[in-house]
Amino acid sequence: MKLSWKQYDLQLKHTFRISRSARDVASVIILEFEHDGIVGYGEASPAKRYGETLETIDSFFRKINFERFDSPLLLEDILNYTDSIEQGNTSAKCAVDLALHDWVGKKLGVPLYKLWGLNPDKTAKCSFTIAIDSKEVVEQKVHEAEEYPILKVKVGLDNDKEMITTIRSITDKVLYVDANEGWKDKHLALERIKWLKDQNVEFVEQPMPADQFDDIKWLRDRSDLPLIADESVLRLSEVPKLAEAFDGINIKLMKCTGVREAMRMISTAKALNMKIMMGCMIETAVGVSAGAHLSPLLDYADLDGNVLITNDPFDGVRNIRGELKLNNKPGLGVTLK
Amino acid sequence: MKLSWKQYDLQLKHTFRISRSARDVASVIILEFEHDGIVGYGEASPAKRYGETLETIDSFFRKINFERFDSPLLLEDILNYTDSIEQGNTSAKCAVDLALHDWVGKKLGVPLYKLWGLNPDKTAKCSFTIAIDSKEVVEQKVHEAEEYPILKVKVGLDNDKEMITTIRSITDKVLYVDANEGWKDKHLALERIKWLKDQNVEFVEQPMPADQFDDIKWLRDRSDLPLIADESVLRLSEVPKLAEAFDGINIKLMKCTGVREAMRMISTAKALNMKIMMGCMIETAVGVSAGAHLSPLLDYADLDGNVLITNDPFDGVRNIRGELKLNNKPGLGVTLK
Repeated sequence: MKLSWKQYDLQLKHTFRISRSARDVASVIILEFEHDGIVGYGEASPAKRYGETLETIDSFFRKINFERFDSPLLLEDILNYTDSIEQGNTSAKCAVDLALHDWVGKKLGVPLYKLWGLNPDKTAKCSFTIAIDSKEVVEQKVHEAEEYPILKVKVGLDNDKEMITTIRSITDKVLYVDANEGWKDKHLALERIKWLKDQNVEFVEQPMPADQFDDIKWLRDRSDLPLIADESVLRLSEVPKLAEAFDGINIKLMKCTGVREAMRMISTAKALNMKIMMGCMIETAVGVSAGAHLSPLLDYADLDGNVLITNDPFDGVRNIRGELKLNNKPGLGVTLK
Repeated sequence: MKLSWKQYDLQLKHTFRISRSARDVASVIILEFEHDGIVGYGEASPAKRYGETLETIDSFFRKINFERFDSPLLLEDILNYTDSIEQGNTSAKCAVDLALHDWVGKKLGVPLYKLWGLNPDKTAKCSFTIAIDSKEVVEQKVHEAEEYPILKVKVGLDNDKEMITTIRSITDKVLYVDANEGWKDKHLALERIKWLKDQNVEFVEQPMPADQFDDIKWLRDRSDLPLIADESVLRLSEVPKLAEAFDGINIKLMKCTGVREAMRMISTAKALNMKIMMGCMIETAVGVSAGAHLSPLLDYADLDGNVLITNDPFDGVRNIRGELKLNNKPGLGVTLK
């Protein structure tokens, strides 16, 4: 079992500004897992918010030693071992999880959706993200996004109302709103949510900082819109507690170590009667396709990471007007262009 | 896709007496699912406790119409449909779930443990059940069970202490205790648990009736032994609430509609930091093998349903001194003798 990896610099179509950062390029690492003449692809898209960089990913991969395992089919054991190497490093662990699942699908000759008994005609409808920008740029982006039936709007700076008013002056599409922890005061957050409800918004993602859990509980008791946890939730063990403050969770493969744990989070959220969303980072078709294979189990999908870039090195799931179209190739169904 | 089914009367080695019933024969229905020249086996072992009989199973199977589905690989859709036909009927639904999983494993040419990424060398160690009986018969059964390293003892009638004292006079093996809702008074239950703790018992299953939830919460706050829910838990949606009164859950495929939902219950219990046990009814190797394939994910296994009978019509997983030995045949790995 051999691992090798390579950095890719993904060029964003527009500067991507959210409440805490802005960028034009996103760098990811593509992992190749080779065994028995089959190559599986994985991807790590690091987020500073969770303590990862290209360097920490490289360093994590160097610590992996699969010698003790006879077969890549022993997913449970291999991924438990990978998880035990060091805390954190969730996107690096995700790359391993994806590469192994891609390998297993190829070995058994089936796409992952088939391995999981899911219907590829029922992939979730996908939102398209509008990042924070000036009125003029937002107008332009909304026009460019004409083909997508659902928009997810980033807010959390001073121009929240301008962003939404601009968009609503152009379209009455379904809108999701993501504050990315931008509102620090619960009264301000409540006022914004009341206003957003009037703008016919579907839900609000991560209204306040994850470390203000009690404020979010307060807010949820008063909120007219469902609240979805994003920065507040990384992994499985955190899900039950979140049911006290949120109506749903946004699972991201790069936060939760991959599809195996994502499946478990979906089951747990279902048991807790929480809504299930899946998001992504800026990613290639490798990461996005993995989410798409799972997406028949979701309520909301925000898997547009590779639609926001100009140089995806991979072909995989296609996003046709917000519909995620999976191919019938084995594993993740991704190929290097 | 064709379903056919047949009744089997399983002969018990000993009269099987628990706190609420006794029997010498257990009748089950074996379901055959045929498509594309492949046959998958499932099993329904009905429990009166949950409102099922051979007749309700037969009647449920007659309501199933798979015409709308193109392929048995669409497990999520097919099992959601089956679940939606009518409430309850969990063992009948389980038979469908097992038959479809057996079919899928055979279609893809892999045993279920491989489909799920689990290590067959890590199946859970299995307990052997000693039902309620006279001192003499219990002595005889304990001697007959010499090869099994863990005993699960049924209690909940007037002779609890005699049962345990008799067993402890012969062996210091690991003991699980199952009261099957037998203790109706919380003070009595607490006194019994204190005594059982001194007898070096591992945990107590379902000490009190499921409808006495508040009493069980009271008991758990005072109990020296972990409490495991059995009759209190059927399906996924019930698991989070149970964390308030129990330290673990006993999942049974016949209660929870099969392996697909069992997996989800395992994930949820893990998220809630609860212990995970899997038990069974009196079953053939079909039902028991399904549990065994999942068992690398368990803390405790009580999968001896087919060891307690004399005329299992199937070969499947073997129970060698409490070790569950899976074969490498595809699907459930069961064959008609």
